[in-house]
Amino acid sequence: MDISQRASKMPSSPIRKLAPLAEAAKRNGTKVYHLNIGQPDIKTPQCGLDALKHVDREILEYSPSQGYLSLRTKFVSYYAQYGIDLSPDEIIVTTGGSEAVLFAFLACLDPGDEIIVTDPFYANYMAFAISVGAVIRSVKTSIEDGFRLPSIEAFEEQINERTKAILICNPNNPTGYLYTRKEMYRLRDIVKKHNLYLFSDEVYREFIYTGMPYISACHLEGIEENVVLFDSVSKRYSECGIRVGALCTKNKKVREAVMKFCQARLSPPLIGQIIAEASLGVQKSYLTGVYEEYLERRNFLIEGLNKIPGVYSPIPMGAFYTVAKLPVDDAENFCKWCLTDFSYQGATVMMAPASGFYTEPEHGEGKHEVRIAYVLNIEDLAKALKCLEKALEAYPGRIN
Amino acid sequence: MDISQRASKMPSSPIRKLAPLAEAAKRNGTKVYHLNIGQPDIKTPQCGLDALKHVDREILEYSPSQGYLSLRTKFVSYYAQYGIDLSPDEIIVTTGGSEAVLFAFLACLDPGDEIIVTDPFYANYMAFAISVGAVIRSVKTSIEDGFRLPSIEAFEEQINERTKAILICNPNNPTGYLYTRKEMYRLRDIVKKHNLYLFSDEVYREFIYTGMPYISACHLEGIEENVVLFDSVSKRYSECGIRVGALCTKNKKVREAVMKFCQARLSPPLIGQIIAEASLGVQKSYLTGVYEEYLERRNFLIEGLNKIPGVYSPIPMGAFYTVAKLPVDDAENFCKWCLTDFSYQGATVMMAPASGFYTEPEHGEGKHEVRIAYVLNIEDLAKALKCLEKALEAYPGRIN
Repeated sequence: MDISQRASKMPSSPIRKLAPLAEAAKRNGTKVYHLNIGQPDIKTPQCGLDALKHVDREILEYSPSQGYLSLRTKFVSYYAQYGIDLSPDEIIVTTGGSEAVLFAFLACLDPGDEIIVTDPFYANYMAFAISVGAVIRSVKTSIEDGFRLPSIEAFEEQINERTKAILICNPNNPTGYLYTRKEMYRLRDIVKKHNLYLFSDEVYREFIYTGMPYISACHLEGIEENVVLFDSVSKRYSECGIRVGALCTKNKKVREAVMKFCQARLSPPLIGQIIAEASLGVQKSYLTGVYEEYLERRNFLIEGLNKIPGVYSPIPMGAFYTVAKLPVDDAENFCKWCLTDFSYQGATVMMAPASGFYTEPEHGEGKHEVRIAYVLNIEDLAKALKCLEKALEAYPGRIN
Repeated sequence: MDISQRASKMPSSPIRKLAPLAEAAKRNGTKVYHLNIGQPDIKTPQCGLDALKHVDREILEYSPSQGYLSLRTKFVSYYAQYGIDLSPDEIIVTTGGSEAVLFAFLACLDPGDEIIVTDPFYANYMAFAISVGAVIRSVKTSIEDGFRLPSIEAFEEQINERTKAILICNPNNPTGYLYTRKEMYRLRDIVKKHNLYLFSDEVYREFIYTGMPYISACHLEGIEENVVLFDSVSKRYSECGIRVGALCTKNKKVREAVMKFCQARLSPPLIGQIIAEASLGVQKSYLTGVYEEYLERRNFLIEGLNKIPGVYSPIPMGAFYTVAKLPVDDAENFCKWCLTDFSYQGATVMMAPASGFYTEPEHGEGKHEVRIAYVLNIEDLAKALKCLEKALEAYPGRIN
């Protein structure tokens, strides 16, 4: 009656280790600025909230396992705006983007099969890989290079007969990196040459702060059958709680396989789909407003970070995260210390140690890095930056 | 770039094969009485619908991975009514009962580990077992015995060093069988002797049509650490679409393991939890009304079935299903034929061939059996029964 080996292997996030310390700090009266989380503070669009209030049903029944056709049709129009050509049949509604990742892994990978990711990466990819018995291999990116895509050679060093997929997150969580057209073509070439799946997590598609055109995996010609897109309305409309995502692919065999797992779990959330459908029709001004808010925050944060002596952050081009290097012996210790031994004017800051986003938390470059989410307003960001500056001055384990 | 072997192995439900035939029949103007589905036609309680309309939030944000404490506290009071003693910590909110099954399997079973079920069983257990690489072994029950629990010896024949769990559904889907106290004690003894998990799916707890006291797996003394309870508000409150279930266990190691999978998928549905929390406080008259409705339907259906020449159904003591034996060469063919070649006064009937609920669909007793869900009102049930009677008279493959 032991628990499973896979459960033992599941990563436990460094953020979760810090959570009780943050709670204790709050109980002691310290204000904690949360730079650690991906929960936006932006309001959900009113049309989504209105749809929720106007649900007019007497029975809250199962929806189709693939999700409502009306929602999938709305997704089609949404994708068309980005030059992504999909039909309703090619879209499967999932319980959050998380389920899209899990079901793609279940449908495409057998135990022992390998996926290549760029390191650092969203920690839950590892959790889903362990769940299905797949192996994650990583190709290192580094803060000095601004986390740009490694060379074809670096990928090919990791490819073997068990390699089935490359998984990207674009724009990237945790680094905020946005792949260039040239980099996307490089990925296309590798995927094509080795006949791999390209899993592309594009849940931060709206959050891009550069004039360059956005290149989706779905734009890449010649690998249409290889691409499996993961999407979610969570970040886009500040609707993390409704658990509505999507898995999109032109590959019919993959869709049929994914649908078997969808049918086993019966249906995605009914109310969430109603809210998501309404939100997909939100006025452009909502998204523009959100974009401008994040752009301002990003500029403010990155400028502020790079002004603190010893701190370095590249300029993230997308999402709402950055990975910054701090002049500390051990970023995880530093993050803990900020919660247990430090406050400035009654406040402190909570950040995610970057070690949790690297394949090898112990030895990785993440030891000196933190992930910072800019999901606070400018005023709070300013106070959080001041706390960080003061904490770095006072921290006993400061280096250089 | 093949799909995974596990995807290839996933069962495809016979109901799903019939669905396009039912659609075609409807397009041809035939009225189809659905006796095949587990979607209740009962209204969701008004307090749940009201809670939905009064959600007063500006941000539809993540809820805790374990589910809201306020909801778990409501579950505690609910369970107390059934003499089930649980604390909020011992309850994990899941995305439907389905996720509770999947996460228990992930947390407790490694690939190759075995689970024993009683045959016939809810087909999606097989889907979740395949998803995690576990193996289902079955102990046969039979319609002649009213699907009662097999002997200890029959279980022990299936137990080997890879056996990790026994999984029961009580009251049972598809048979409607309710385990007696003596049978539950028998399960307790086997579980204790062989140190197994007892996974107990009790989502039909409210639907029991006998004066006997309900014996939950949680009532069994001496195996508190072995029991993992699966629950759901779907059937109880006609809220299948909100995707709120629960996994409950006193076993702390199991809870910690399950929570790792919960954290990877971030959170259960926010709005569903709000509706479920309100519904758990529904007036007793709602549940009494539902109970009386189903009791009347059950009595009407079973009497009607057993009056049709050659048809036999035991009297189900719980849930809202029965497995009935029909005088046909092949129940799957018969169910198809009802949709493609038959109608009576412009109507026909759709049932689930029982073969899909047996471990060995090809050779099982299920060949002559169907599962019938009594989720129609009496008037429609009467018409459906008449269609079935006439169809059996006309079916070319009728036997005896």
